[in-house]
Amino acid sequence: MKELKGAAIIGQSGGPSSVINASAYGAIKAGLESKNITRVLGALNGIRGVLDDNLIDMGKEDPAELALMKYTPSSALGSCRYKLADPDVDDSDYKRILEIFKKYDVRYFFYNGGNDSMDTCNKISKFMMKNGYECRVMGIPKTIDNDLAGTDHCPGFASAAKYIATATMEIFRDANVYDSGMVTVLEIMGRNAGWLTAAASLANLKGQGPDFIYLPEVDFDIDAFLEKAVEVYNKKKKVFIAVSEGIHDKDGKLIAEYGSDTAQTKDSFGHAQLGGVGAYLAGLLKAKTGSKTRSVEFSLLQRCAAHCASQTDIEESFSAGQAAVENAVNGITDKMVGFERVMEDGKYSCRIKLFDLNVVANAEKKVPMDWITETQDGVNEKFAEYALPLIQGQTQLTTEDGLPRFVNLKKVKA
Amino acid sequence: MKELKGAAIIGQSGGPSSVINASAYGAIKAGLESKNITRVLGALNGIRGVLDDNLIDMGKEDPAELALMKYTPSSALGSCRYKLADPDVDDSDYKRILEIFKKYDVRYFFYNGGNDSMDTCNKISKFMMKNGYECRVMGIPKTIDNDLAGTDHCPGFASAAKYIATATMEIFRDANVYDSGMVTVLEIMGRNAGWLTAAASLANLKGQGPDFIYLPEVDFDIDAFLEKAVEVYNKKKKVFIAVSEGIHDKDGKLIAEYGSDTAQTKDSFGHAQLGGVGAYLAGLLKAKTGSKTRSVEFSLLQRCAAHCASQTDIEESFSAGQAAVENAVNGITDKMVGFERVMEDGKYSCRIKLFDLNVVANAEKKVPMDWITETQDGVNEKFAEYALPLIQGQTQLTTEDGLPRFVNLKKVKA
Repeated sequence: MKELKGAAIIGQSGGPSSVINASAYGAIKAGLESKNITRVLGALNGIRGVLDDNLIDMGKEDPAELALMKYTPSSALGSCRYKLADPDVDDSDYKRILEIFKKYDVRYFFYNGGNDSMDTCNKISKFMMKNGYECRVMGIPKTIDNDLAGTDHCPGFASAAKYIATATMEIFRDANVYDSGMVTVLEIMGRNAGWLTAAASLANLKGQGPDFIYLPEVDFDIDAFLEKAVEVYNKKKKVFIAVSEGIHDKDGKLIAEYGSDTAQTKDSFGHAQLGGVGAYLAGLLKAKTGSKTRSVEFSLLQRCAAHCASQTDIEESFSAGQAAVENAVNGITDKMVGFERVMEDGKYSCRIKLFDLNVVANAEKKVPMDWITETQDGVNEKFAEYALPLIQGQTQLTTEDGLPRFVNLKKVKA
Repeated sequence: MKELKGAAIIGQSGGPSSVINASAYGAIKAGLESKNITRVLGALNGIRGVLDDNLIDMGKEDPAELALMKYTPSSALGSCRYKLADPDVDDSDYKRILEIFKKYDVRYFFYNGGNDSMDTCNKISKFMMKNGYECRVMGIPKTIDNDLAGTDHCPGFASAAKYIATATMEIFRDANVYDSGMVTVLEIMGRNAGWLTAAASLANLKGQGPDFIYLPEVDFDIDAFLEKAVEVYNKKKKVFIAVSEGIHDKDGKLIAEYGSDTAQTKDSFGHAQLGGVGAYLAGLLKAKTGSKTRSVEFSLLQRCAAHCASQTDIEESFSAGQAAVENAVNGITDKMVGFERVMEDGKYSCRIKLFDLNVVANAEKKVPMDWITETQDGVNEKFAEYALPLIQGQTQLTTEDGLPRFVNLKKVKA
């Protein structure tokens, strides 16, 4: 292995998660401790920070304060949703990145984000190789959606899942407190993959979960749904439902669109901005049953409720960041750090595994069809077997005045 | 003091809270340990359980399981919203209650709830006195709204406040992660009293809180609001607002009603069912700024997120339940247990104080006007001084499989 000395840039991108900073901190800490990495630079607002030469010197931060990143939600370096062009069409951004890399003698680039970020990472890696600029590029995954290909699971998923399962149990108890009728619909994030919505099923292990769970992996039939839900309501005077924001009919039309005649806005990656399916279904059930109804959106908290994060997720995310740096220093490039599940004597452990950026970028992993019940309104025990080890352990978040003590970076310009 | 031997009934009523069961458990435990209380009966679904002779024997529960009540949200005995008639108009419910009291030789009645429950408690107490049936009646308060008269604060408020402040900090970080514009509006419970909304200000102590906070104690002027919010947005490309669901214009019209032409439904106490003011204001700001906007309703979780409860609140709530029983056994009746704040050398402690049910029932305590800023868009340091001691300590909730272990009662019929 050829030793490579130079600066490292770490950037964060995409939607926040409770543990994205645990990964970034793992990489920053390992970078600051590495004898080959001369300087650790943070790119503010992801790749935009590189393009705009908006970099901070992580070595200037107080180490104890920096360590709080491990328990702080939502990209501490800031995020972006900027999508790099296809370099064959327009390579001006890439040239600018190369210019910045040369300016700071950047030989290590770590990018911390979801599918789109792995795509960014992949494009930069290939461009640098093609142009003969030696720079080791590693992707550090993060996505509550758990939809990255290859890796057993994604940093961030477990904390969101733990929050969703916990909050589902609490809302279940709330919904069952009166002897009068109650229809409850939980709307959970997940455009195409139902991992997060499936997490509501963990509440069922405690007998405090949904009657029905609908994932975007299967077509949603409104009439069949109403019939089933009303039947349960008539029996118990209660029905409790969890739906993914991305459920759709057999023609692919989003159920959210049924309830809304407002045009769907799209973000810069072309993703539709969803919402409202829970309220729509609750409204239909209100009309059918006359019951009091509650539609609850877990909204932003499912991706930023660090106070309910999984310590397993935090430690794994931290180790993913560390492993990215250690592997890069050891000569590896053009990979994403991921996880391999190891089960020994029924005991879970997690091993770092590297994946080709080519394979990961823009692929999407869904909940396997054989984990979904035959009636397509729930998940079976395979999901719990998969998810339970990941949500173990309460966050060791520091508190101050009864509130979380999150990181406060000085952000000294590089 | 005359010794009084007999059974005790404990019932829970009104909306759930994270710690209502801590109080009930305090009363049940003290009742089971008292030599004068022959039997502790739980009324299922509050006063309805008495009227319907639907009582369970708390002594038949496994003590270790019962102890989990202390950390379980949402009335474990079930709740109701049943309002007793004025006994001068229709005393049939009261006669039925007396009949049940006689059937089980009930000499102690503990009712755990909010304003309306204290009213129920008061009416039952006065009826029993008038009819010469010796029964000691004590109210054990609970309300996240913190609006009961007399007591320094209400069991349940602090846990809701801690959740709101914590979640506000987390959402603040989420809202500030991108370099693009973002308007965030948090909608928080509180019809007439702004205690919960004011709790969002605790996030400001950490520099991660709202620019503006609007309470129902003051009139809300939409035009002035928009002007201020747009000004902040233009400066920072971000504006972060917390509003109470109950904010209203100078004529008393709810701002929620501006946004909705659907008729307000009312519950059996005549309270309007609110909602939508956050989305309405976010929509107005979107039109003014063109920014991406997020409207987040804390919804049910602010009253049932036991995983984020204040241990101080849990212990105080527990002691309120205990004190109700101990005082009743010692001859006290017709009172509500409340709290008196003791500050010694700047250190907070909380002492039990008894209040006349007459005084408490149906009065409403609001945030003092001199705690609200002159510009009427926030609260001053007096609120933090008041609230901070109450939110100290993380819940000591037992977990199992990474999830809360809530109580599971056998509910053996009495």
